[in-house]
Amino acid sequence: MDDKTMKSPNVVWHEAEVSRAMREELNGHRGAVLWFTGLSGAGKSTLAHAVERRLYEQGAHTFVIDGDNVRHGLCADLDFSDAGRVENIRRVAEVAGLFVQAGVLTLTAFISPFRSDRARARALLGEDFIEIYCNTPLDVCESRDVKGLYKRARAGEIADFTGISSPYEPPEAPEVDVDTGTQALDVCVDQVMAYLRQRGIIA
Amino acid sequence: MDDKTMKSPNVVWHEAEVSRAMREELNGHRGAVLWFTGLSGAGKSTLAHAVERRLYEQGAHTFVIDGDNVRHGLCADLDFSDAGRVENIRRVAEVAGLFVQAGVLTLTAFISPFRSDRARARALLGEDFIEIYCNTPLDVCESRDVKGLYKRARAGEIADFTGISSPYEPPEAPEVDVDTGTQALDVCVDQVMAYLRQRGIIA
Repeated sequence: MDDKTMKSPNVVWHEAEVSRAMREELNGHRGAVLWFTGLSGAGKSTLAHAVERRLYEQGAHTFVIDGDNVRHGLCADLDFSDAGRVENIRRVAEVAGLFVQAGVLTLTAFISPFRSDRARARALLGEDFIEIYCNTPLDVCESRDVKGLYKRARAGEIADFTGISSPYEPPEAPEVDVDTGTQALDVCVDQVMAYLRQRGIIA
Repeated sequence: MDDKTMKSPNVVWHEAEVSRAMREELNGHRGAVLWFTGLSGAGKSTLAHAVERRLYEQGAHTFVIDGDNVRHGLCADLDFSDAGRVENIRRVAEVAGLFVQAGVLTLTAFISPFRSDRARARALLGEDFIEIYCNTPLDVCESRDVKGLYKRARAGEIADFTGISSPYEPPEAPEVDVDTGTQALDVCVDQVMAYLRQRGIIA
């Protein structure tokens, strides 16, 4: 419920809300969503956590939303059908929006292969949405194959696997295009941090 | 994706995660969920925002989740049927759990009339779940009737209105039982703050 003022015979209550701007002032940085997208194995989660670590070391308030913490929780009711994936990304964008209101630098790490889904997230989040393309070519991702998923997908054991049997639609104008295929992790982190400073999101 | 270590011919990437404990150390307080429950007009949202304000003034990192910021967003696909309400509370609890992982003192303000729903939230959140009963009697809520909802419910214009045509199941052992019916707002806030200090959640 959202009563702004409450009266009873005995008490008059007034609400004093804490605004996003007040939280950002407390934090010393702006809230924003760093939306990492790319193929399986491109380095999204690794880069997101490395950027988070760097931000933390500067005293920033951060959180990473990824499959690990939503697929078994908030989105546990969703399957991996097209409709399930669309709803998964919709909820992630909505939750990221709440974290931004809380003044948190929020990093999301999902393949999010479809432009339409990312466009919806961008429409929802506006200028708080920062698309970071983990630009590792398919052959590099496949040669890494940390989880053996590409091998299984090639063997036909995984249906609709992005890059093999389901398309990945690369960002057309990402805010940051990171060469996660050949660069060292620190160099990739530097690039993201430079963008955040340039935008005035961090000092 | 959640690759913990990635290798390619050129680079070896290692992940360095920021933990909840690290965020709590940065914040200077623990994360927790303050789950405000009570009738419509009991003062849940008002008290939640007033507690948030007090916490903010002490430098704490907070966020209020209420109908205002989820019913039109994350839960916009849900109706007010029993199933819709159950799913609404489930998602709120899951999102609150993410905020706790981020080290945030999270305040939720929903009628949440059913013990079973609150029990599920408690089961999910464990010792991070703090149930705060906004204990305003029905007749006081109805006499306040800030939004005119009770009048409409009595006239039969609103189906399944909690307290009138749908039950409210009071908490049996809430962590905090606040007399929001007669006490001044500051006194109610003091009571919640004292509990948080006693539990060692804030200094």
